[in-house]
Amino acid sequence: MTTSFVTDNAIRAVLDGKTKPLGSLGRLETLAAQVARIQGTLQPRADSCHLVIFAGDHGMARSGVSAYPQDVTRQMVLNFLSGGAASNVFAASVGASLQVVDAGVVGEAIDHPKLFNQRQGEGTSSAIEAPAMSSTQVDEAVEKGREIGAAIEADVACFGEMGIGNTSSASLVCAKTLGKSVVELVGRGTGLDDAGLHHKRSLLTQASERMPDTLDARSALREYGGFEIAMMTGAMIGAAKAGTVVVIDGFIASAAALCASRISPRVEDNFVYAHRSAEAGHELVLKALNATPLLDLGLRLGEGTGSLLAYPLIRAAADMMRNMASFETAGVSGPA
Amino acid sequence: MTTSFVTDNAIRAVLDGKTKPLGSLGRLETLAAQVARIQGTLQPRADSCHLVIFAGDHGMARSGVSAYPQDVTRQMVLNFLSGGAASNVFAASVGASLQVVDAGVVGEAIDHPKLFNQRQGEGTSSAIEAPAMSSTQVDEAVEKGREIGAAIEADVACFGEMGIGNTSSASLVCAKTLGKSVVELVGRGTGLDDAGLHHKRSLLTQASERMPDTLDARSALREYGGFEIAMMTGAMIGAAKAGTVVVIDGFIASAAALCASRISPRVEDNFVYAHRSAEAGHELVLKALNATPLLDLGLRLGEGTGSLLAYPLIRAAADMMRNMASFETAGVSGPA
Repeated sequence: MTTSFVTDNAIRAVLDGKTKPLGSLGRLETLAAQVARIQGTLQPRADSCHLVIFAGDHGMARSGVSAYPQDVTRQMVLNFLSGGAASNVFAASVGASLQVVDAGVVGEAIDHPKLFNQRQGEGTSSAIEAPAMSSTQVDEAVEKGREIGAAIEADVACFGEMGIGNTSSASLVCAKTLGKSVVELVGRGTGLDDAGLHHKRSLLTQASERMPDTLDARSALREYGGFEIAMMTGAMIGAAKAGTVVVIDGFIASAAALCASRISPRVEDNFVYAHRSAEAGHELVLKALNATPLLDLGLRLGEGTGSLLAYPLIRAAADMMRNMASFETAGVSGPA
Repeated sequence: MTTSFVTDNAIRAVLDGKTKPLGSLGRLETLAAQVARIQGTLQPRADSCHLVIFAGDHGMARSGVSAYPQDVTRQMVLNFLSGGAASNVFAASVGASLQVVDAGVVGEAIDHPKLFNQRQGEGTSSAIEAPAMSSTQVDEAVEKGREIGAAIEADVACFGEMGIGNTSSASLVCAKTLGKSVVELVGRGTGLDDAGLHHKRSLLTQASERMPDTLDARSALREYGGFEIAMMTGAMIGAAKAGTVVVIDGFIASAAALCASRISPRVEDNFVYAHRSAEAGHELVLKALNATPLLDLGLRLGEGTGSLLAYPLIRAAADMMRNMASFETAGVSGPA
C-alpha cells in the first residue's frame, strides 16, 4: 500500500547476492521481498509486533451453533486481561505486545484499565432471522477498526478475535462474498460433534436463504458479520494503508481479510498469511485471496495465535535481508 | 531417552485443562507433550537453544557433484566465524547461541578463537572409488560428536552442517542404510542444472556399485559419509542421551538422524523435525524416520537454518504448557 521506492529487481539482486545458493531460503526470501516492498527499503525490519484481539458476541450463539456457551466470550476477555490465554503466552514467547478491544460483548461493559472499550452493541442480533447489525453499525465498526489499525506503531500487526459463534458468522460472510453455498464453508468450529455440525448446517442454511447468493462485503458484514469481524476488517485496512505488515491469522481473520480486500483493493499486498486452519472453510477463502500460508500445524483456536507463531519467521526473513553478508563482502565464491 | 517421570495421561490432562477448545493448538500440543516427556516434567521449558555447525570436506566434491567449488566450505567457515551467514542471522533472530566445529576441512587448520578444532582429516577420500574414511575415523568422529552433544547445556540443541558435496554423501548414506537405489535419493543439492544432475547421478551410481545394496549405519558412514555427518550423528546421540530436545534440520541432518537412530535406538524419541527440505531424497528419509516436520518452506540451505526457524515453535509450545491458565483457575466454562 505504500508507494515502493525499491524495485523488484533491486530486491532480487540483494537476496541473490547473499552467501547462500540462489533461492535456497525458499519462502523466507519471498517473505523478505514482500516486507521490503511494503516498507519501500532494501533494509526491511520486523523488530516489533503488536497483536490486537477484538472480542464480540453473536446473536446466533444462543441457537447452539457453537460447542461453547456464549458466556465464554466474556470469560475469555477476562482471561486475556489477566494474561492466561494462549495468545498472551505466545505474545510473550515471541516478544509481541497485546491489546484487547471490546467490540461488543454481551452484558455490562467490563471496566478494566487494559481493555479498550469500542462497544458497538451488546452482541449482534441473530443472523438466522435478521441482519446481524445495522448499516450504521457496520460503518462505525469498520471506521473504528481503521483508526485502531492506523495507530499501530509496530513493524508487524497481528489481529485476533474472540466471539462464541464467530466461525458461523465467518462462514456466512465468506459464502456470500464469494457467492458460494454456505454448506461448503461450514466446519466444526471449536469442536462440534456430528449432531452439532448437522444442527449448525441447517441453521446456517436457513440464515443464508434470507438473502441472495452473492453480496458485497459491506452487506455481507451487515447481514452476517460480528462486531469483532467488522472492526478487524477496518483494522487490516488501516494498518495496511499505514504501511504496516499485516499478519492474517486463521479462518475468521481470513473472512475479515477477504472483506478488507474487497472494500479497499490492494491492501492485500501487505498481508502475510500465517497458517492453514483446520476449519473446513479456510481453504476456499485462501484460494480466493490467492494466499499460501506459512504454517500448517492443525491450529483452530483463533485469538491471533497462529499469527503470533508466524511472526518469528517474518522477523527472521527481514533480518536475513538486512544482516546477511554478500558473496562480495564475505569473500565467498559463487557457483563454479 | 530420559526415563520419564510423567505419564502420557498426566500430560494430556494438563493440555486438555488449558483455556482453549480441546486439541485446538494442533501440532503445538503434540510438541509440548514431546518436550514434557523428554524432560520428565509437566512444566517443560525451551528457553535456551544452541546450534552446533559441523564443517567438513568431501573427496567427491573434486569430481563435480556440486554446483560450488570445494573452497566454499572453508570460505563459509570463515563467514560463520565473522557472523555473516544465514545461520548467524537466524541464531541472533531467535535467540540461539552458535558454535562452529571444524570436523575436517581441506587445507591448513583455521586458527580462530571461536572455532572448535576437531579435524578428523583434510576432507574425506573420494567415495566414488574408495571408502570415504577408515573405521577408526568413523568411530572417532561419532565419539567426538557424542561428547559435543552431551556437553550442550541448552534446553534445545540444533545441529547444522557445511560441506560442499555433502548432499551426495547424504544420498549415498541414506540409500545404503535404507537399502534403496541411490538414484531415488539424488537431487539438485545447492543448485545443479540438468546436465549437472545427470553427471551427479552417474557418479553416485558408480560409487554405490562398490558395495552391497544395504549397509549398517556405521559402514554406510565409513564408505560414503563425511566427517561432519559422522560427528553430527554422534552429537545427536549424545544430546538425546543427555535429555536434550534435538532439532533435526534438513536432508543432510536427517541422514545423520537416521544413522543415529540405527546406532542408538530410542534416541529418536528426542528428535523434533524442523522442516521438509526441497531436496529430493528428504521425503524417503522422513518416511523411514516416521517424521512429520514442523515447517514446509522450500528451504535447501543447511547450516541448521531450518532448525533455528523451527525453534520459536518449540519454545512457544513449552511456554503454552507451562504458563497458560486452566479452565479451573481462569473461571472459563467448558463445552455446553
